[in-house]
Amino acid sequence: MSTVPPIQTNSTNNDPRVEAVFEDIRETRGSGFINNFWRYLAFDPDLLAQTWAEVKAVMVTPSDLDPLTKEMIYMAVSIANSCPYCVHSHTAAAKAKGMTDGQYADLLKVVSLAAKTNHLVTGLQVPVDPEFDHEVS
Amino acid sequence: MSTVPPIQTNSTNNDPRVEAVFEDIRETRGSGFINNFWRYLAFDPDLLAQTWAEVKAVMVTPSDLDPLTKEMIYMAVSIANSCPYCVHSHTAAAKAKGMTDGQYADLLKVVSLAAKTNHLVTGLQVPVDPEFDHEVS
Amino acid sequence: MSTVPPIQTNSTNNDPRVEAVFEDIRETRGSGFINNFWRYLAFDPDLLAQTWAEVKAVMVTPSDLDPLTKEMIYMAVSIANSCPYCVHSHTAAAKAKGMTDGQYADLLKVVSLAAKTNHLVTGLQVPVDPEFDHEVS
Amino acid sequence: MSTVPPIQTNSTNNDPRVEAVFEDIRETRGSGFINNFWRYLAFDPDLLAQTWAEVKAVMVTPSDLDPLTKEMIYMAVSIANSCPYCVHSHTAAAKAKGMTDGQYADLLKVVSLAAKTNHLVTGLQVPVDPEFDHEVS
Amino acid sequence: MSTVPPIQTNSTNNDPRVEAVFEDIRETRGSGFINNFWRYLAFDPDLLAQTWAEVKAVMVTPSDLDPLTKEMIYMAVSIANSCPYCVHSHTAAAKAKGMTDGQYADLLKVVSLAAKTNHLVTGLQVPVDPEFDHEVS
Amino acid sequence: MSTVPPIQTNSTNNDPRVEAVFEDIRETRGSGFINNFWRYLAFDPDLLAQTWAEVKAVMVTPSDLDPLTKEMIYMAVSIANSCPYCVHSHTAAAKAKGMTDGQYADLLKVVSLAAKTNHLVTGLQVPVDPEFDHEVS
Repeated sequence: MSTVPPIQTNSTNNDPRVEAVFEDIRETRGSGFINNFWRYLAFDPDLLAQTWAEVKAVMVTPSDLDPLTKEMIYMAVSIANSCPYCVHSHTAAAKAKGMTDGQYADLLKVVSLAAKTNHLVTGLQVPVDPEFDHEVS
Repeated sequence: MSTVPPIQTNSTNNDPRVEAVFEDIRETRGSGFINNFWRYLAFDPDLLAQTWAEVKAVMVTPSDLDPLTKEMIYMAVSIANSCPYCVHSHTAAAKAKGMTDGQYADLLKVVSLAAKTNHLVTGLQVPVDPEFDHEVS
Repeated sequence: MSTVPPIQTNSTNNDPRVEAVFEDIRETRGSGFINNFWRYLAFDPDLLAQTWAEVKAVMVTPSDLDPLTKEMIYMAVSIANSCPYCVHSHTAAAKAKGMTDGQYADLLKVVSLAAKTNHLVTGLQVPVDPEFDHEVS
Repeated sequence: MSTVPPIQTNSTNNDPRVEAVFEDIRETRGSGFINNFWRYLAFDPDLLAQTWAEVKAVMVTPSDLDPLTKEMIYMAVSIANSCPYCVHSHTAAAKAKGMTDGQYADLLKVVSLAAKTNHLVTGLQVPVDPEFDHEVS
Repeated sequence: MSTVPPIQTNSTNNDPRVEAVFEDIRETRGSGFINNFWRYLAFDPDLLAQTWAEVKAVMVTPSDLDPLTKEMIYMAVSIANSCPYCVHSHTAAAKAKGMTDGQYADLLKVVSLAAKTNHLVTGLQVPVDPEFDHEVS
Repeated sequence: MSTVPPIQTNSTNNDPRVEAVFEDIRETRGSGFINNFWRYLAFDPDLLAQTWAEVKAVMVTPSDLDPLTKEMIYMAVSIANSCPYCVHSHTAAAKAKGMTDGQYADLLKVVSLAAKTNHLVTGLQVPVDPEFDHEVS
C-alpha cells in the first residue's frame, strides 16, 4: 500500500521523460531490473529525473570515496532515519558491491554504538571541546 | 552548561575506576588529551567503564572495516541523529585518521542524498521489492 | 498487529464518552467512517477525548492558515518523524481537501530538499547568522 | 564553531564557481546578504553549486505551491529534524515572505499536534485503514 | 537567540490570559519562577493556555504513574528527540522530584541501550514475533 | 522480510557461542521462548553475545530503578525512535512485568506530550534558563 500507483516499466503509455530515466538506469546498472523507488517516484517525471541525476552523480560517478564505502554510509543514514525500504535496498546494494558478513556486522556495531553514545551525549549535554574547532585541531 | 559537572582529569580525588579508564584512554590513543565526553560520563564510573570498553572494542580493535570507514559511518549516524558534540568529535577524529577534504565533501553528499531519498520513500510509502529479500538476492 | 485491541464502532458496550467522541467525529466530518487511529486510541476514553478535542480545535476550526496548508504541514512532520500510518492518513486527507498531484510533487520536493539541507547544516555545524535574530531581522 | 572555515564573500581568492553561485544568490534574492549556510558549503564548490541549483529550482521557481506555503513546509521538516540553524533561517525567510504571527502560531500548533499524534500512533502501532489506499480513496 | 521575543513576567502590559496562566503556574508549583518555555510560548496566548492546561493535566494531576516516573519518561523522549532545552528542564525537574545520581545513571543506561538496539533492529529489519500480539500475549 | 536469515533455536549446527547465549536467555527469563531479535542478531555471534550481556546487565540485574520503570523508559525511546519491533517487544515486556492499562495510557500521554513540547521548543528555539545549570539548581 502506497500513496501513489507505480508506473509500469513496460508500458508504451509512459511519459517519454520517465522512459528515458528508466533506460538510463538499466544502462548504468547493466540490468533490466528497475526497483520500486523509481517506479513510484515516476508519478512526477521531473522529481524522478532530478533524483536519478543526483543519485547517479553521487553514487555512480567515481569520486574520492569508493562505491562500497558510500553505500555503507547510505545504509547508516537510512537506519538512523528509520526507513525500512531504504535499509533493504541499500543493504542489498552493499552486498552486491561485495560487503561481507563480517563487514556488515562491523557496520551494525558502529551504527548501534554511535546511536548509544549520541543519546548519552544528548542526555548529558556535553559541551564541545575547543580542541575540536577546525581552526585549532 | 551540562546536566552533571565534569570530572577533573588531574585530581587525586577521583574514583580509581575512573582513573583506570582515563589512563587506558591515554595509552590507547597515545595522547594526554581526554575529551569532554569521558569527563562528563565519569559521573558514573560503571557507565564510563562499560562505554569505553565498547568504544575500544568496536573502534580501536582491528576488524573487517578499516578505522577511517568506521569513523565516517559514526559521523553519518551522528549527523542523522542531530548530535552536535558527536558531529564535532567524530569529524575531528576522521580528519586525524586521514579523511581528506574531498572525502569529507563526498560523505556529506551521500549523507544528504540519503536523507533526501529517505524522506521521499517515507512520503510515498514505497513497498519493498521482493528482490531485496536476503533469501533471493 | 497492534498493542491494544480496537474498539468496535457499532457496539452497545462502549463507554459513553467513547461513543460521544465517535459521534462528534462523524458529525464534524459528515461521514460515518471512523478511521483506526480513533478506534485504537479509544482504549483510554480520556486520551481519546483530549486528542480529538485538540485535533478538532487545530485542524477543523477556521484559523489563520487554510485547511489544506495545515494538512500539508501535518504530512511534512509525519514524513520527517517516520510514521507510516500518519503519512497515509494525512496524505488521504490532503487529497480529500483538494491537493493536486502537482502540489503533492511540490510538497515532496520541499520535504526532501529540507531533509537534505538539514543534514548538510548539521554535518557542517553552521553557526546561526545574527541577521536571523527576531530582534534585528 | 564549525567543522570547516567559512568562505569570505568579498575575497578575490575564491574559486570562480563559488563566486558565480554567490553572484546568482545575490541577484536572485535582490540582496547583498549571503547567509552562512552558503559560505560554509562553499568549502566544496561542487556541493555548493548543486545545492543552490536545487534550492533555486524548488523554492524560487514558481510552481504549484506558493512561496510562503513551501517555506512553512520547510520549517516543519526542519523542526521535526531538530536543526536549529534551519529553523532560524527558514522562520526568518517565512516572515520575510509575509508569515503573520497568527500564521506562525497556527504552524506551531499543527507541527506540535502532528508530533503528538505521530508518537501515539507509533506507540499503539495502529494498522493502516484500507480506505487510505490510493486505489480506493 | 530565538524566533520570538520573550514575554516579561512582571509587565502590566501583558494579555490577561497570559497573566492568568503565569499565575496558575506559580500557584501550582509554589514558586515565583516562570521558566523560559512559558515566557516564549506566551507570544500566542491560546497556545500558551492550551499547552499549560495539558502539561498540568498530564504531569501535575495525580494519576497511575508517580510524578518522578513521568518526569523520567519525559526526559527519555526529549533525549531521543534531540531537544537540548527539554533535556535541561526535565532533568532539573526530575532532580527536584528526588531523582538520585544512581537513578539518573540508570536512566542513561536504559536510554542509550534502547537507542542501540533500536538501530540494530532497524538495520536487520527483524520481523515482529506473533507472540507479541496483544490478542495472544 | 529481513536482511539476514534467522538462526534456528533447536539446530545442532549452531555456533557454540550462539547456543550459550540462547541458553542463558532461557535460564535468565525462565522461559523457552527466544524472540526474533536474538535469532536474527545471532548471524554474528560476537554482536549477539555483547548485546545480550549489556541487556542483561542493564535490564535484568537489580539497580536503582525498578524493572517496570526501566521497561517503560525503553518503550518511550523506542517510540520516539520509530522502531515498530521494539515498541511491540517492550510493550509486551512491560505488560508481563505488570504494567496496567491505566499506566500504559499514562505513559502514552507523557510520551506524546513530550513530543509536542519538544517540537514547540525547537520551533521557538527557546534559550536554556541559567537556573537549570547543574551548578546552580
